Amino acid sequence: MSDTVTAPITVEVTRGDLVESFHRGLVSVVNAQGEEVCAIGDTSTRVFPRSAIKVLQALPLVESGAADALDLDDAELALACASHNGEDTHVKTARVMLIKAGLSVEDMECGSHWPKRMEDIAALVRAEEEPSALHNNCSGKHAGFLGLARALGAPTKGYVLPEHPVQQEIKAVIEAFTCEEVTTDVCGTDGCSIPTYAVPLKAWARAFAIFGTGEGLDEDRLAACDKLYEACVSEPFMVAGTDRFCSDVMAAFEGRVFVKTGAEGVFCAAIPELELGIALKAEDGANRAAESMMGALLEVLMQDRNDEQSKVLQRYTNPPVLTRRDVTAGEVRPAADFVADLYAQLS
Amino acid sequence: MSDTVTAPITVEVTRGDLVESFHRGLVSVVNAQGEEVCAIGDTSTRVFPRSAIKVLQALPLVESGAADALDLDDAELALACASHNGEDTHVKTARVMLIKAGLSVEDMECGSHWPKRMEDIAALVRAEEEPSALHNNCSGKHAGFLGLARALGAPTKGYVLPEHPVQQEIKAVIEAFTCEEVTTDVCGTDGCSIPTYAVPLKAWARAFAIFGTGEGLDEDRLAACDKLYEACVSEPFMVAGTDRFCSDVMAAFEGRVFVKTGAEGVFCAAIPELELGIALKAEDGANRAAESMMGALLEVLMQDRNDEQSKVLQRYTNPPVLTRRDVTAGEVRPAADFVADLYAQLS
Repeated sequence: MSDTVTAPITVEVTRGDLVESFHRGLVSVVNAQGEEVCAIGDTSTRVFPRSAIKVLQALPLVESGAADALDLDDAELALACASHNGEDTHVKTARVMLIKAGLSVEDMECGSHWPKRMEDIAALVRAEEEPSALHNNCSGKHAGFLGLARALGAPTKGYVLPEHPVQQEIKAVIEAFTCEEVTTDVCGTDGCSIPTYAVPLKAWARAFAIFGTGEGLDEDRLAACDKLYEACVSEPFMVAGTDRFCSDVMAAFEGRVFVKTGAEGVFCAAIPELELGIALKAEDGANRAAESMMGALLEVLMQDRNDEQSKVLQRYTNPPVLTRRDVTAGEVRPAADFVADLYAQLS
Repeated sequence: MSDTVTAPITVEVTRGDLVESFHRGLVSVVNAQGEEVCAIGDTSTRVFPRSAIKVLQALPLVESGAADALDLDDAELALACASHNGEDTHVKTARVMLIKAGLSVEDMECGSHWPKRMEDIAALVRAEEEPSALHNNCSGKHAGFLGLARALGAPTKGYVLPEHPVQQEIKAVIEAFTCEEVTTDVCGTDGCSIPTYAVPLKAWARAFAIFGTGEGLDEDRLAACDKLYEACVSEPFMVAGTDRFCSDVMAAFEGRVFVKTGAEGVFCAAIPELELGIALKAEDGANRAAESMMGALLEVLMQDRNDEQSKVLQRYTNPPVLTRRDVTAGEVRPAADFVADLYAQLS
């Protein structure tokens, strides 16, 4: 983000009758023709997409034929696009993906961290284990990268480096979908050690419009996008896990919506039935702000929804602020002006 | 915060050569005469101080004579002002405070949560225990409240409620130190179930100028402030714990600085030698922003410091952003314009 003086307030966090904290953000919604139909703030701001574009980073795995050659099923492909909780199923699935590629956790270069949920942490402690790279929320993505490296006949060592064929394949996908050239001066290192490229926010929205509609893609790439979209929406638990926005919203909308979060308050989405792609960024990087913004956007866009879908959206758009005795002390909510602006631009 | 459109960018979080996220904030510095000598953003904005004013909330415990009657030592008084990590020493000390008051964990109304550090979580899991109210970061404060309730001859049950004598005593202290009347419409419920009152940020800075200098206080209150100040700076580990800003900075400055953090990006400080009180708030509530802002302020104000003190400040003002393999990918840093503004106003 090079200049966010124009980023408006998008989310408020209340306590009692007052707003305690404010979040600001940028939103871009782009249609299949590449036209920006909604812009909140300066959407030409360069944004590191982080994990929000894992589904694009998984495209070479499918397009190359590696996914088929390794016999990866939908759950495994969804895990390749995931930022997961490190729950038992996620860890086991990542391990199987590595076995299918003839590799092991020793080959992973993502580093490790503890699982997200306390019960999974406790299970590890009770087993007298430390978290491994398999528990890393990106382990499925890395297992996919390793599978791709094998398919490309490239060395697996160094697969996270910008110059490695795996990362070069991904860079080409990013350039094709965003219609932006990405150079080393906009390259950062992601938390899992791979390159991440800062591109204007509206270019990320465009990329997800293309991903969701297939507009302008050749047959093979279209088939690969469809395969990954279907894998994620049919196995949403694999994409994140228990009590997570991406999993719960994709499950509730039964294939109608693809959503994916990324670190530092980024969120991307594709809505094929509306032929729209979405990218947003909370200026300060807060996840609670990004979730409330994406929830508000889906409430505006997905008017045709049932009670259960509304309930799931509200859980993430308007979560309560609780005391340590679980009494409601306030709430996270999209700012009224932000919602009004969304309606004005999107109706 | 009723209106923060004027909150400027104060902290940047970089990745590679770009800024990935921005934080905004408000800062007020007030002298012993109650004059605001530095204002960043609209410092008349009402701010919930949360745990940043625990030392003021502990004053009635000392002033009432309860602290002496219960034979509380410096470590216990520091814990009464603490937001601690829930490390073994913190938990044991809180338990002793309750025993001295003839009470137990059953009397605490703060709720519970897991300790902050993974090794303390693991120790609980290995012991097949769940966290109790003693592990709550506010447990020392609540043990103090219970001791005060006993000294006041008030029922201990309901000591967290706004109308309870304990909370009424604290409200009177807040009104005296901030020179603001606090009414129910600016009252929220804190995470540990006690009332928290939103008062203009500059009034909190004023309160800490009074706390640090004793300006205008009667003899008993002055003695109580001195006792709590000395307790915190002589037992800084009790105020927070391992690898925490408040503990490390107070330890490094050996009594010259009192600092205390609060949830949602609040920080207060008193610097007696400069006769200054400080209050700041990160607009979005981010702790990383509040720490970088307070670190930058101390770097500007405490020019007379040694290498070790500089090193400690830098650790919190400019922490690196690390990958999961502990490689530096970026940094948190105070924005150049913010630092320039601090120098311009404070030199």
